[in-house]
Amino acid sequence: MKFCSECAHPVALAVPEGDNRPRYVCPHCHTIHYQNPKLVIGSIPVWEQDGKLQVLLCKRAIEPRYGYWTLPAGFMENEETTEQAAVRETEEEAGAHVELGNLFTLLNVAHVHQVHLFYLARLRDLDFAPGEESLDVRLFTQDEIPWDDLAFPTIRTTLELFFADRVKIREGGSYGFHSRDIVRPMLAPREPD
Amino acid sequence: MKFCSECAHPVALAVPEGDNRPRYVCPHCHTIHYQNPKLVIGSIPVWEQDGKLQVLLCKRAIEPRYGYWTLPAGFMENEETTEQAAVRETEEEAGAHVELGNLFTLLNVAHVHQVHLFYLARLRDLDFAPGEESLDVRLFTQDEIPWDDLAFPTIRTTLELFFADRVKIREGGSYGFHSRDIVRPMLAPREPD
Repeated sequence: MKFCSECAHPVALAVPEGDNRPRYVCPHCHTIHYQNPKLVIGSIPVWEQDGKLQVLLCKRAIEPRYGYWTLPAGFMENEETTEQAAVRETEEEAGAHVELGNLFTLLNVAHVHQVHLFYLARLRDLDFAPGEESLDVRLFTQDEIPWDDLAFPTIRTTLELFFADRVKIREGGSYGFHSRDIVRPMLAPREPD
Repeated sequence: MKFCSECAHPVALAVPEGDNRPRYVCPHCHTIHYQNPKLVIGSIPVWEQDGKLQVLLCKRAIEPRYGYWTLPAGFMENEETTEQAAVRETEEEAGAHVELGNLFTLLNVAHVHQVHLFYLARLRDLDFAPGEESLDVRLFTQDEIPWDDLAFPTIRTTLELFFADRVKIREGGSYGFHSRDIVRPMLAPREPD
């Protein structure tokens, strides 16, 4: 942020009175421009038939992570609820129609100022197709999940937790709600010469 | 938003290519200024002794809802997790130190572009005091909760769900996770003359 969005004057970084952290403030009209984390919301669309469970993934047609696989997800919009965001993103990216279940994961990605939420979801039918932001949309059994070609750590974590809960369900349990922090990956320490 | 925060040129409302809703876009530098919901995060700080349970509330020293009672809560900041936000707001507004439990409520307040999260919390001690944004901080038993003087619908909903779960706990249950949509209150229909 370089200029005030209210009066076009250059902004400055300063700690406002009564606050304790630097904000972009306008020395001219005194507007304080707060910046806060964004919600990224998606679903885990599942098709289950004859004892075989498959999860729907989308191959990204946009950066970042073009060509990598993701659960349908995207930024929550104003004027919608978290559930509406999950359903909308699933329709937009995968052309898929889902019956939404409970919230399954809340994943903090603090270093990129994001909180990711994923909802359980049941595909209503097999009438899906890639949206503008997807190259491909496919169903995967657990054995087929492209673990090395997943787009983001939150996708891997959500899928790992999902399949772990499936084991519990076979033993009479049910899906839980899981909260995790995704920590910025550190560079590997250099090997001694 | 009136001016581009990157180049100070006046912005226009337009649907960007490949998008499906109007955004503030800059005709000069082509920046798209997305606006997304904000997270408001708080806790339900509880003190339990000799079978008596009390909940800590803060009397607001700021607008909106100056003088009304609230659970400690506020806007999540960049670079922190949802749990860190809940602990920080509880310290800032109530001077209280808590051991955080599970996420208890997720409340969509779509008409004001907010999602509110409240965490279960146990007060570590009784060493609390109003912060800059609070006039008073007090412990309330269920019978003492000032239901008519609560600041926001999300506070009422969270407290109602909390005390409902307490009944279940006395019957051998446990706290759940609850998701609700707070719908904008409609004006009451006019009485026929």
